[in-house]
Amino acid sequence: MEIRLDVWEKFYAQRVRSIRPSIVRMLFAAASRPDIISFAGGMPHPRSFPVKEIAQVIKEVLDQADISLQYGPSEGLWELREEISKLMKEREMNVHPEEILITDGAQQGLDLLGKIFINPGEAVVTEGPSYVGALNAFLSYEARIVSVPMDEEGITSELLDEALTLMEKKKEKPKFIYLIPNYQNPTGLSLSLKRRKEIVEIADKHQVPLVEDDAYGYLGFSPNTLPTLKKLKEDAIYLNTFSKIFSPGMRIGWLTAPKPVLEKFSKAKEAENLCPSPFTQKVLVAYLKRFDIKNQAKKVAQMYQERCQAMLEALEENFPSEATWTKPEGGLFIWVTLPDYFDTTEMLAKALEAKVAYIPGEAFYADGRGKNSIRLNFSYSEVDVIWEGIKRLNKVVKEQFKIYKAFYKINSSKKEKARSKSLKEEK
Amino acid sequence: MEIRLDVWEKFYAQRVRSIRPSIVRMLFAAASRPDIISFAGGMPHPRSFPVKEIAQVIKEVLDQADISLQYGPSEGLWELREEISKLMKEREMNVHPEEILITDGAQQGLDLLGKIFINPGEAVVTEGPSYVGALNAFLSYEARIVSVPMDEEGITSELLDEALTLMEKKKEKPKFIYLIPNYQNPTGLSLSLKRRKEIVEIADKHQVPLVEDDAYGYLGFSPNTLPTLKKLKEDAIYLNTFSKIFSPGMRIGWLTAPKPVLEKFSKAKEAENLCPSPFTQKVLVAYLKRFDIKNQAKKVAQMYQERCQAMLEALEENFPSEATWTKPEGGLFIWVTLPDYFDTTEMLAKALEAKVAYIPGEAFYADGRGKNSIRLNFSYSEVDVIWEGIKRLNKVVKEQFKIYKAFYKINSSKKEKARSKSLKEEK
Repeated sequence: MEIRLDVWEKFYAQRVRSIRPSIVRMLFAAASRPDIISFAGGMPHPRSFPVKEIAQVIKEVLDQADISLQYGPSEGLWELREEISKLMKEREMNVHPEEILITDGAQQGLDLLGKIFINPGEAVVTEGPSYVGALNAFLSYEARIVSVPMDEEGITSELLDEALTLMEKKKEKPKFIYLIPNYQNPTGLSLSLKRRKEIVEIADKHQVPLVEDDAYGYLGFSPNTLPTLKKLKEDAIYLNTFSKIFSPGMRIGWLTAPKPVLEKFSKAKEAENLCPSPFTQKVLVAYLKRFDIKNQAKKVAQMYQERCQAMLEALEENFPSEATWTKPEGGLFIWVTLPDYFDTTEMLAKALEAKVAYIPGEAFYADGRGKNSIRLNFSYSEVDVIWEGIKRLNKVVKEQFKIYKAFYKINSSKKEKARSKSLKEEK
Repeated sequence: MEIRLDVWEKFYAQRVRSIRPSIVRMLFAAASRPDIISFAGGMPHPRSFPVKEIAQVIKEVLDQADISLQYGPSEGLWELREEISKLMKEREMNVHPEEILITDGAQQGLDLLGKIFINPGEAVVTEGPSYVGALNAFLSYEARIVSVPMDEEGITSELLDEALTLMEKKKEKPKFIYLIPNYQNPTGLSLSLKRRKEIVEIADKHQVPLVEDDAYGYLGFSPNTLPTLKKLKEDAIYLNTFSKIFSPGMRIGWLTAPKPVLEKFSKAKEAENLCPSPFTQKVLVAYLKRFDIKNQAKKVAQMYQERCQAMLEALEENFPSEATWTKPEGGLFIWVTLPDYFDTTEMLAKALEAKVAYIPGEAFYADGRGKNSIRLNFSYSEVDVIWEGIKRLNKVVKEQFKIYKAFYKINSSKKEKARSKSLKEEK
């Protein structure tokens, strides 16, 4: 066995230590193996891609090669920004094309948020749990993540207010509150109307910028009538993507922000990768001009509703009564909570042995919480595969239950004490 | 008139102050106006794009929609990494596909270099002048840029050695030496064989990582037989792009680095934008499998040679004897040097009035040097347009000469003193 030191160690920047190895990436290889049923990814189903429609517009794109194959403006193509402005207006967000910046998926928007706002050690408030890709982007700029617990109505306003008040007392101001109000990743939950209004009030009261990630906003199983935070608060920073309703392979998302902030985003974006691909932007523009993307989104959502339903039924039929899970009304994910003493990161090896994959809940926190939860994706697998996968997973969970229960009986009093102590410390 | 304060000011990260407003972006609008002849950009000529060939492979790409429209691995598609490995082996760089990371153009590679290596205030050594996009990427991580002067043979080894020795004495270690050895941006100059060997020795002696940006390596007017730095030094970090020989609109570049470093690059890349576009990667792979990209590059280079020749002749015929310029053997740019007292940033407004655009030399330094130089791009304009543009520019230059000469006579003794003083301080 060869042990090699990394001779480059002394050259790396401090922030490299904060960039987490992505469990999603680590699972990519395992999840691609045909014998493994993977609920790990967040991938749209390939049948949701409008391949025929893209084939119909591609000639148009190549006919404009002087634009589509050339460098483009770093803010993105004007005509795409116009189309997005129209889409946003239909949802009562009054955003001018000038206020829109095209990004490489919503992910680049998250990275740029970190880049222009976060100094090492500064706080960002998120839902607990929150999207792992957002946490990784913020952590890569050495953010301190403050996760505020959620319930069925989304992030709890009271605890958010408390957290911000506490930080104020410590003379600390978080750089922004990052929320995914619609069919959240990883829980599938939506923020209730009452909460949306409360959150906006709290953000105003504490004068902390509000960031809304609406990546799943078009994926409601029934029409989504809740107002976006951006609609309720004009100066909210808003991110979205075409990855879930069109194609993630095109890598096109967007963000909108007040003008001076957008100017910072643009400059940072240009230094990062000059411009978004005019080729894929042109494909999307041609599609948007010829077809109705809301119909397309509706078809995708219906496809996922059936899968979500199947997964909920399979969980109901299989999983032990100690487990609970969310009942999403849209999106791609179900969040399963197991008893406190579960360690789903540890359990993953056994799950992979049983040929089923998921993402351990720990990935959706930055502080070790979430160990007793798992995120299940229902968009990528067929209904029969979902049933089989949940059966496999259930076997693993039940096996773990046996082990933990034996262990838990012995240690429960000790553990209970430790837990109540740590809860006190948190307050 | 309304004066508005940026109420967001207090929220920005420190590094935002280091991100420069890009003159390239500022000139994008002006340069797109049909009445202005622009030598400002670095854009390939649209006729260089293999549009017909792409049209031939696009069906293949759409037939594999489950890959091309889906998320892909963050390192890039394996088959593209294989094709790149082959291309590199033909130039005697022995790089395995595993050691290759696909990036969004070479620009993302430059950004990631900053992200994984540069702590605020740390030094990076570059050629003086160097590529503005690289400087901006490094500055966005608050790098201190140390520019080492060039002559006709490229960066001067002696001065590089001196700079590194001086830094060593101050207990300072630069994070890397960033060089563009082939047909450099902005000068068009290539590093001589003797210098390449010396540079590698110097990097080894001082133990500073060497970064090679080979974006123009395929654009030699005659076959480029010089070894890459990567060939001479196996652990050099090497960046390249398909933007200049295929299409910048596809946003595909790559980098290769020693394994542990590549792992850091991959993680940082995933946090930044998840994965490069599988759609544009698939287009490129299909092209590379069916066509010979070296032939394509050769055709592009021949097209540019003719334009370069025209620009050199136009300069010779028009420009005053006080001006000098480089005579590139490849690439996209000519670097014109005017007398010391010229301020080409100031002159730009007059040039735009005369309907001709360029990039002031100052953009290619981070310390205010380069004010008496300009970068001219010859790839984007037709031969007759080049002649007309140089004529327009010459008028502006001559006009400035008159003004400066009158001014210079009065102030020359004062200026001369100040200059020799600042030169002493530099040493």
